[in-house]
Amino acid sequence: MDTTSNNYWGQPQNVLIGPVEGGVTAPQGFVAAGVYCGVKEAKKDLALIYSEAPAVAAAMFTTNVVKAAPVLVTMDYLRANRARAIVANSGNANACTGDEGMNNARRMAEATAAALGISPKEVIVASTGVIGVPLPIERIESGIAGAAKSLSRDGGASAAEAILTTDTVSKQAAVVMDIRGCPVTIGGIAKGSGMIHPRMATMLAFLTTDANITAPMLKIILKRSVDPSFNMITVDGDTSTNDTIAILANGLAGNHLISTTTSPEFRVFRKGLNLICETLAKMIVKDGEGASRFIEVCVKGAFDLKEAKAAAMAIARSNLVKTAVFGSDPNWGRVLAAAGASGARFMQYRADVYLGDVKTAANGVPVDFDEEEARIALAGPEVKITVDLKMGQSMARVWTCDLTYDYVKINASYRS
Amino acid sequence: MDTTSNNYWGQPQNVLIGPVEGGVTAPQGFVAAGVYCGVKEAKKDLALIYSEAPAVAAAMFTTNVVKAAPVLVTMDYLRANRARAIVANSGNANACTGDEGMNNARRMAEATAAALGISPKEVIVASTGVIGVPLPIERIESGIAGAAKSLSRDGGASAAEAILTTDTVSKQAAVVMDIRGCPVTIGGIAKGSGMIHPRMATMLAFLTTDANITAPMLKIILKRSVDPSFNMITVDGDTSTNDTIAILANGLAGNHLISTTTSPEFRVFRKGLNLICETLAKMIVKDGEGASRFIEVCVKGAFDLKEAKAAAMAIARSNLVKTAVFGSDPNWGRVLAAAGASGARFMQYRADVYLGDVKTAANGVPVDFDEEEARIALAGPEVKITVDLKMGQSMARVWTCDLTYDYVKINASYRS
Repeated sequence: MDTTSNNYWGQPQNVLIGPVEGGVTAPQGFVAAGVYCGVKEAKKDLALIYSEAPAVAAAMFTTNVVKAAPVLVTMDYLRANRARAIVANSGNANACTGDEGMNNARRMAEATAAALGISPKEVIVASTGVIGVPLPIERIESGIAGAAKSLSRDGGASAAEAILTTDTVSKQAAVVMDIRGCPVTIGGIAKGSGMIHPRMATMLAFLTTDANITAPMLKIILKRSVDPSFNMITVDGDTSTNDTIAILANGLAGNHLISTTTSPEFRVFRKGLNLICETLAKMIVKDGEGASRFIEVCVKGAFDLKEAKAAAMAIARSNLVKTAVFGSDPNWGRVLAAAGASGARFMQYRADVYLGDVKTAANGVPVDFDEEEARIALAGPEVKITVDLKMGQSMARVWTCDLTYDYVKINASYRS
Repeated sequence: MDTTSNNYWGQPQNVLIGPVEGGVTAPQGFVAAGVYCGVKEAKKDLALIYSEAPAVAAAMFTTNVVKAAPVLVTMDYLRANRARAIVANSGNANACTGDEGMNNARRMAEATAAALGISPKEVIVASTGVIGVPLPIERIESGIAGAAKSLSRDGGASAAEAILTTDTVSKQAAVVMDIRGCPVTIGGIAKGSGMIHPRMATMLAFLTTDANITAPMLKIILKRSVDPSFNMITVDGDTSTNDTIAILANGLAGNHLISTTTSPEFRVFRKGLNLICETLAKMIVKDGEGASRFIEVCVKGAFDLKEAKAAAMAIARSNLVKTAVFGSDPNWGRVLAAAGASGARFMQYRADVYLGDVKTAANGVPVDFDEEEARIALAGPEVKITVDLKMGQSMARVWTCDLTYDYVKINASYRS
């Protein structure tokens, strides 16, 4: 556990925030299960997460015009900002499936509600996998009944496994923080960009916490944590139809209620949630399709935050930059050119470019850098690219991965 | 030569517009040369195009904030809308080179002007290749002197060759049209997205015509022809620092002066210029880095033209769509998802998707299509993807190519 020097409470003690073992069942009162129900072939494909106590909930969804049925159903159900269960299948995205898909998403919620004795409107539904194919809903309904029976405090890792598609590792994290002497835990699982059979990328993240927090605060804090983490990653620039991030808070930690954005409680909880979101978002990028290197793109000195984000995202999305990193080629001109086409305002003969710690360009022209040193900066598993536009004070950071042969292989669907 | 049924002149004759042999020297009064001057290794690297008569000129340049020195110099020189010569080297982009680069670009214009006895302001300068490296300006100056001596009516093909970088084929086209009984010719050469050593993509296109046309009309007509052709192609979504399209018109055809946008002359000339621009733009996409298939993305039924373009460009830029085409995988969901994230307004359960002539989705849900037939539609050298948003009357078309192992290979710079 890391010890920070901040002292939020005006007391002679340190605020503690740090990672702990586990995922969605790390907070008090949460149980989970991951089972096989027959959507995929011989792999766990159904996850269930349940709060034994009533909980407030918040969620964010894909901004794509084309939204999968479970997204549309959950957006409707969550209007009351309350939920106690999350059910998610992998292997089939239930997207582009019309009325039948909407019915099937509702049937998933109803089966979950029946098995757990709660209302269907307290169920968050998610799907990931092939699109345009009807769900095998009977199998999923049987699976839900079985999963409900095997819910346990040890089931978090199984749930993390059951939501994966082409992910190569399962992704879970948990953090504990000290809120006025009361330990509060947040846990989470996520899946990244993957194709099944191979159709469409989907990002899912499910978070749980025993924090005592109001629904409006949970909504605000989730958005603030997601914007700089999950919303600042890119694998290939394609936005999925199924993206869903949801959080349940059941209050069992018994901490002083988090009810205003200006309270020290709010700040500590936000710090903890940031840590979980950043950790899971990084895991997704590191396991991006075909990725061999993790890339952090940092743009500073931008005119405003919007332009900083636009420039960083343009660099992170650039196939030329991503292939150069794959090849460890210190090709800083591509970085500056990508920024130049982003819409961010800057003067080309003022910008500096760094590859790792190596300054490759100053005021828009090359400096006499050691090519071998720059090459080494691009050869490790984690690469940092920094551009200083020297126009203002705003900065943004985007995480991405390199573009490799394997990305093309995975997505060109060589089925032979 | 194609014969169209339109009759612009109200006379009992057909308007003829059609392709002819050659490139920039097809129109009357133009000579050209392509020579080796020592920027590249043992390949032609300097092109010179010259109009024996005074000419009006128009040009369009990259919108990237980071602009190469020759772009900045030419933007300045062209204020009078007159030019007689185009000089371009390959192998070095003269980009990100500061004051020295600006001086070198001006020296290229001055050397050309001296060799031809014209003013430096009548010279259009362009460069393509490595960035951030000073031009070997003495070699280029000697090259210009030599090229000026070898200018000829047969030199168009050599000039086309001398501007190439990683292009695998040289690109030239010419068209002749009948303007009130007077044959008018337009010729052009182009180079596409390529890396040298490997740095930055550059697109160059140089057009010549013997049309008798005013400078304001030439400017308007160039923009109108470039918008739906060169501005609607994408190889990898990266915008270069050096993009330049220039046209010279020397009036030697002696046609009735094209001086208003409402005249039939204007319409015929525009048709001819469209044909040249489309032909060269297609050549660039077909020779895109690593490309194995040419893709035409057509979005129709959009709310307005801006949204039609945004949706078509988003589909054409999508790495998921481009890899699916490479793998001949009839993955229409990626197409709809890319459109959905483009900003274009539509209702997901109204849109139709076609791969070639195969309708794969109607009203946002899959139709029972023959997978093998759809696969074949994606397996040829030219692939067409159509989305009908059914929201309005606007349509747009973008040309792109697939994303292949070779794209990654070329740009990851395996130098071993």
